[in-house]
Amino acid sequence: MSLFAGLSAFPLTPLNRDRIDERSFAALVQRLQAAGVDSITALGSTGSYAYLDGAERDRVAALAVEHAGGIPVFVGVGELRTSRMLARIDGAQAAGASGIMLAPLGYQKLNDQEVFELFAAASTHSELPIILYDNPGTTHFAFTPQLYTRIAQLPNIASIKIPGVPAEPAAALGHVRRLRSVLPARVTLGVSGDQFGAAGLLAGCEAWYSVIGGTLPRLALSLARLATSGQADAALAESRRLAPLWEQFARFGSLRVTAAIAEQLGLVPENCLPLPVQGLDARQRTELARVVAQLGLAE
Amino acid sequence: MSLFAGLSAFPLTPLNRDRIDERSFAALVQRLQAAGVDSITALGSTGSYAYLDGAERDRVAALAVEHAGGIPVFVGVGELRTSRMLARIDGAQAAGASGIMLAPLGYQKLNDQEVFELFAAASTHSELPIILYDNPGTTHFAFTPQLYTRIAQLPNIASIKIPGVPAEPAAALGHVRRLRSVLPARVTLGVSGDQFGAAGLLAGCEAWYSVIGGTLPRLALSLARLATSGQADAALAESRRLAPLWEQFARFGSLRVTAAIAEQLGLVPENCLPLPVQGLDARQRTELARVVAQLGLAE
Repeated sequence: MSLFAGLSAFPLTPLNRDRIDERSFAALVQRLQAAGVDSITALGSTGSYAYLDGAERDRVAALAVEHAGGIPVFVGVGELRTSRMLARIDGAQAAGASGIMLAPLGYQKLNDQEVFELFAAASTHSELPIILYDNPGTTHFAFTPQLYTRIAQLPNIASIKIPGVPAEPAAALGHVRRLRSVLPARVTLGVSGDQFGAAGLLAGCEAWYSVIGGTLPRLALSLARLATSGQADAALAESRRLAPLWEQFARFGSLRVTAAIAEQLGLVPENCLPLPVQGLDARQRTELARVVAQLGLAE
Repeated sequence: MSLFAGLSAFPLTPLNRDRIDERSFAALVQRLQAAGVDSITALGSTGSYAYLDGAERDRVAALAVEHAGGIPVFVGVGELRTSRMLARIDGAQAAGASGIMLAPLGYQKLNDQEVFELFAAASTHSELPIILYDNPGTTHFAFTPQLYTRIAQLPNIASIKIPGVPAEPAAALGHVRRLRSVLPARVTLGVSGDQFGAAGLLAGCEAWYSVIGGTLPRLALSLARLATSGQADAALAESRRLAPLWEQFARFGSLRVTAAIAEQLGLVPENCLPLPVQGLDARQRTELARVVAQLGLAE
């Protein structure tokens, strides 16, 4: 099995008074290892990579590998400036990461050639396998299948993290098949957007890059195992059961909701997100606590 | 006259092999001073603020004030994380800036309350007057007039940089009047989007926050003076004459076009933009050179 398959869990990077809470972060990583996730992706969007400075990020990468107990760790290396992105690759490599994840962060709108050359720079800078991170909701860059294909031909491209699949199963299958048809066999597809996790795996994605998996790994593993063992109906039913959680994600953003759940479970300190991003307010927390209780999410 | 009125010119921050070219930057600032612009805004989008690290930005702020010969200098302080934004205010203040400009940079989508509290943090951190920088094209945050009003009531809010005005003069006038009606008198409005410069000033904006003014200050000053001296027809005619330039801005982004013009005039080194942002390619440069010659832009 590829390294870039199964459940990859995305832990939060909790802050405490604007400094990384290293103890909480280490405990989150150990919790993922204990649950048996297939890999850990540190410093994804859920890990607030875009908000942390270089030294903080290199430290988080090192902590993740140190506490993962041998489970492969991938590290988000996206930066607005190419030279800093290359420095983050160096940090991930020094930490002993098994791969890196790269999103085309933009301030000025990037064109396809600029994004291609960003990935080209990453792919020749080290031997680390690369996950192409397609997240138009945060980067505002829209990949085309053509650009996937061009980038996938670069050395060391190992996986593409796609932003969801169509809701309808046949459409999802068609979407994944079309992408697969333009990609080398060595490149896995990983679904993201947790509400699409089951549907994406059932449609043929090898991986689920999961936000909730970073905080509720048993829940996410159970869902992933249903989908990858061919229990399609059970997987889809479980994902539908979790609809109130996905609805919270849609309303407030998966980061804010996941941070509030982690706080409720005592896994992270209060106000663990990087300002200006704030957590849920008191009323929203009460509502979320009801969802957590109703769905039996505490683990 | 308010400090936040007239032509505010936005210089590039040229790089040379990924390091700030301090000599070119100082010369750009001196050129603006010599042309007699009303103010200089360093580290705007045109000054690549989002791509530079804290030490680079504090250094650019200091260089700008040092070489501005007494002309007021405003400094862009936007950062993804509130604590770093406050550090940039400290840098601007240490440099002797006359004001700061703040955009709500986002990775996670920010809500109105988060943006309000970002400005609240800035407004109580120092006595420096603040320009609210509304640039949805880069920040992907959409201000409402209601949020303008709330933020404008904070201490030290001096101006709002708005993203253009409607093309039709009566509609532009109505737009500016409506904004004015919800803002305290001490807050000036400044138009941005250079194709809207003349129309915005004619519609009652006190300031033009100008990209092209940072590289072709005589051109921008001449246009601004026509508009602010009541020569509406002449101002609009001059802006229409420049339509081929505005079209280049629309096609490639004002940053890439301005950098290519500055390079053509020998003001900045080759490839002065922060990678992954690339300059125009050879064919695009040839076309732009034709526009520059046709419009007589070299100054």
